Amino acid sequence: MIDPRLAELLDAAPGLRLKTGPADLEHYGRDWTRRWTPAPLAVALPGTVEEVQAVGRGANRHKVAIVPSGGRTGLSGGAVAAHGELVLSLERMNRVLDFDPVDRTLTVQAGTPLEAVQEAARGHGLQYPVDFAARGSCTIGGNIATNAGGIRVIRYGNTREWVAGLKVVTGAGEVLELNRGLVKNSSGYDLRHLFIGSEGTLGIVVEATLKLTDPVPQGSVMLLALPSFEVLMQVFAEFRARLRLEAFEFFTDVALRHVLAHGGQAPFAGTYPYYVVTEFAGGDEATEAAAMAAFEHCMEQGWIVDGVISQSGAQAAQLWRLREGITESIARYTPYKNDVSVRISAMPAFLARAQALLGQAYPQYEVVWFGHIGDGNLHINVLKPADVDGAEFVAHCEQVTRLLAQALQEHGGSISAEHGIGLVKKPYLGSIRSPEEIALMRGIRRVFDPNGILNPGKLLDA
Amino acid sequence: MIDPRLAELLDAAPGLRLKTGPADLEHYGRDWTRRWTPAPLAVALPGTVEEVQAVGRGANRHKVAIVPSGGRTGLSGGAVAAHGELVLSLERMNRVLDFDPVDRTLTVQAGTPLEAVQEAARGHGLQYPVDFAARGSCTIGGNIATNAGGIRVIRYGNTREWVAGLKVVTGAGEVLELNRGLVKNSSGYDLRHLFIGSEGTLGIVVEATLKLTDPVPQGSVMLLALPSFEVLMQVFAEFRARLRLEAFEFFTDVALRHVLAHGGQAPFAGTYPYYVVTEFAGGDEATEAAAMAAFEHCMEQGWIVDGVISQSGAQAAQLWRLREGITESIARYTPYKNDVSVRISAMPAFLARAQALLGQAYPQYEVVWFGHIGDGNLHINVLKPADVDGAEFVAHCEQVTRLLAQALQEHGGSISAEHGIGLVKKPYLGSIRSPEEIALMRGIRRVFDPNGILNPGKLLDA
Repeated sequence: MIDPRLAELLDAAPGLRLKTGPADLEHYGRDWTRRWTPAPLAVALPGTVEEVQAVGRGANRHKVAIVPSGGRTGLSGGAVAAHGELVLSLERMNRVLDFDPVDRTLTVQAGTPLEAVQEAARGHGLQYPVDFAARGSCTIGGNIATNAGGIRVIRYGNTREWVAGLKVVTGAGEVLELNRGLVKNSSGYDLRHLFIGSEGTLGIVVEATLKLTDPVPQGSVMLLALPSFEVLMQVFAEFRARLRLEAFEFFTDVALRHVLAHGGQAPFAGTYPYYVVTEFAGGDEATEAAAMAAFEHCMEQGWIVDGVISQSGAQAAQLWRLREGITESIARYTPYKNDVSVRISAMPAFLARAQALLGQAYPQYEVVWFGHIGDGNLHINVLKPADVDGAEFVAHCEQVTRLLAQALQEHGGSISAEHGIGLVKKPYLGSIRSPEEIALMRGIRRVFDPNGILNPGKLLDA
Repeated sequence: MIDPRLAELLDAAPGLRLKTGPADLEHYGRDWTRRWTPAPLAVALPGTVEEVQAVGRGANRHKVAIVPSGGRTGLSGGAVAAHGELVLSLERMNRVLDFDPVDRTLTVQAGTPLEAVQEAARGHGLQYPVDFAARGSCTIGGNIATNAGGIRVIRYGNTREWVAGLKVVTGAGEVLELNRGLVKNSSGYDLRHLFIGSEGTLGIVVEATLKLTDPVPQGSVMLLALPSFEVLMQVFAEFRARLRLEAFEFFTDVALRHVLAHGGQAPFAGTYPYYVVTEFAGGDEATEAAAMAAFEHCMEQGWIVDGVISQSGAQAAQLWRLREGITESIARYTPYKNDVSVRISAMPAFLARAQALLGQAYPQYEVVWFGHIGDGNLHINVLKPADVDGAEFVAHCEQVTRLLAQALQEHGGSISAEHGIGLVKKPYLGSIRSPEEIALMRGIRRVFDPNGILNPGKLLDA
């Protein structure tokens, strides 16, 4: 028999699709964290803004918790529904609604995958430059909920920079049209920016108007081999000074080993402890000369010990795969993930501290490091050995995360650079936000969601 | 005898400077609007963050309203103190605190003038690119409070884009360190962005960490003469497609006449109804050829009827003066100012509508138009004839603003592009923000300032 709350919802919105089968509840109740047992009440799949409003109103009436749901590629548990929540999936709202060539904006529904946004932009001769490996599965609504970053932040910034307008449905079922695509609008608090990164706790993003930019012609990609992490920032400084960097990503030999075991192609005859993949715009002679000058200077200094530069688009893609394949190649080890950031200038000191800390804390685990060095963002993945119990492994890793959070606090860093807080990082929020800030956030949340039905338990406890 | 509330304040913060003389009260109690009679209780001039905290605590205890005060160059009455408020001037807190070459950030106290920030950036071989004519008098704190825009938004965006971190003092006297200069930080609501554009209603910005960028070598400046406003967007599209625009500003013959009467140098032998001043980066041959191609194409189409390109830095500055001198040249007519924006694509339709509306509404007044066409931002200045009473003039203009606000609402535009809401635009807030949005803003304000002491009466009524 159908839950009476759902029956009433269907009365209010007869076109609303609902799923309640066990396989659906499991599929829609979890994200990529795989740490919680999914147990939603049901899955609502609205096809229109009005249906989203109906879900909001119904949920408010019955105090049913809503978990807004995009591609569920999140790594912090922000889209997990483990306590009888109603999952509100935006997957049917996945259309490009409008392109404006004068404003150079694309208006899309929140369930549109990132890759579909990128393709639509390219179809109009423009570029939506936010990019990362989950592009095919993640949705723009989820990107906005976490202010997603990725591999081109060094040049283009985070998702936040590209949002010209948002249409959201509040917990009370009201529609807000935030900023409406304006370049300039100084008319009170910019609620658009408050929603970006709010992890579904203030309302449900249903549409976004995204800024587009000129496409960058295929640049060159270089893979560099480094002898130690101490020289990483020198290499970065040298390349940044001479080139217009589109990306500057680092990873370790351990990371590369996993990618190669997963089908990647070895870039060098030998192996080295650290690698950087960097891309820069401009296929012209001056750019190539600048790249060679940077490379040679670093070689002379001993900061680089080997390197290769792409000679074609295919080769560039091959080099990129070495970096982008990391997450997939280690997925079967159910890694415990840290996604931390510090100011770029604090990177050397923090890196040294973190390496010492983790080497000591995890002598028995394999640790895979990679990250966006030009943004001060490190990803630290601890791999679970097959013979260690999952809960025990997580408990151990959480202890180490506490130490890491303390180190981050001392270096002015953040426990979440781009994954969001969700459930996973909640215990460590106090390392980056003060008690006063947390109290203010809680107050804001109450203003938007007085009944506490929007993604409760995520980000902050009520 | 000193007010006991002030005496207590001096007890708590003995180093705090206070001014209570009539000339000071008048000077610090008003901004560039000149519409209200200044009547503050006193002026507090803290020299440290601790003194700002002491003022916040004291004001809270006695429910004394605080008006945060920068350069008071605002045009919406946001810094007016006309009801016994305590003006909190940041003018003594005007130092550059830190420069970081790796992060490429400059940390400054809130009272630092914009021009001093620009100069400090230049001193380090970098650029702080937000710019407008009040640069010498306005302060960075005020820029942040209104999310100031200016003449280079088309290329660099508004102040918001350049703030990597904020230190603020809340109404309760607590210090918040928001975002701490991080590039990536997805750890809950971005309160930094909430403060940007909040017009001193959520707290007092005391320090800002600003992003810097590479300086752009002196580009070329072109002044174009246009036969009608209908071709404005075509000229813009043509130049934008071929050049990397640093600015694209429009003004009318009436505006030019005032600048010339004020000492400017006539650019052409004849006069034309509309003018554009545009600047583009790159002094190389390819750029010059592209500029000439754009110019010639527009001439052939009849969209441009005359033009001049700068041959030197001095000439570029001279051409810029024709646009930048407008505000000063009309100041003695105590103009009634509208600062409106629409999406760029909505500009032609809105311009036509606004021109018809204002031509009909103000047959007896001179109207000076100028604006940032590439950002969808128009400045409309109505000049007061000498023989019309001030109050009567404002009352008449307010009637017309109501019609303009209605037109803006129909075109999805904003009644305040970059000046803020303050007192002047408050009656029209409902044309851009919905009742639900306004209620949410009010709720947020209460969270930050439960006693209602921060710039009360500005932006929103409590």
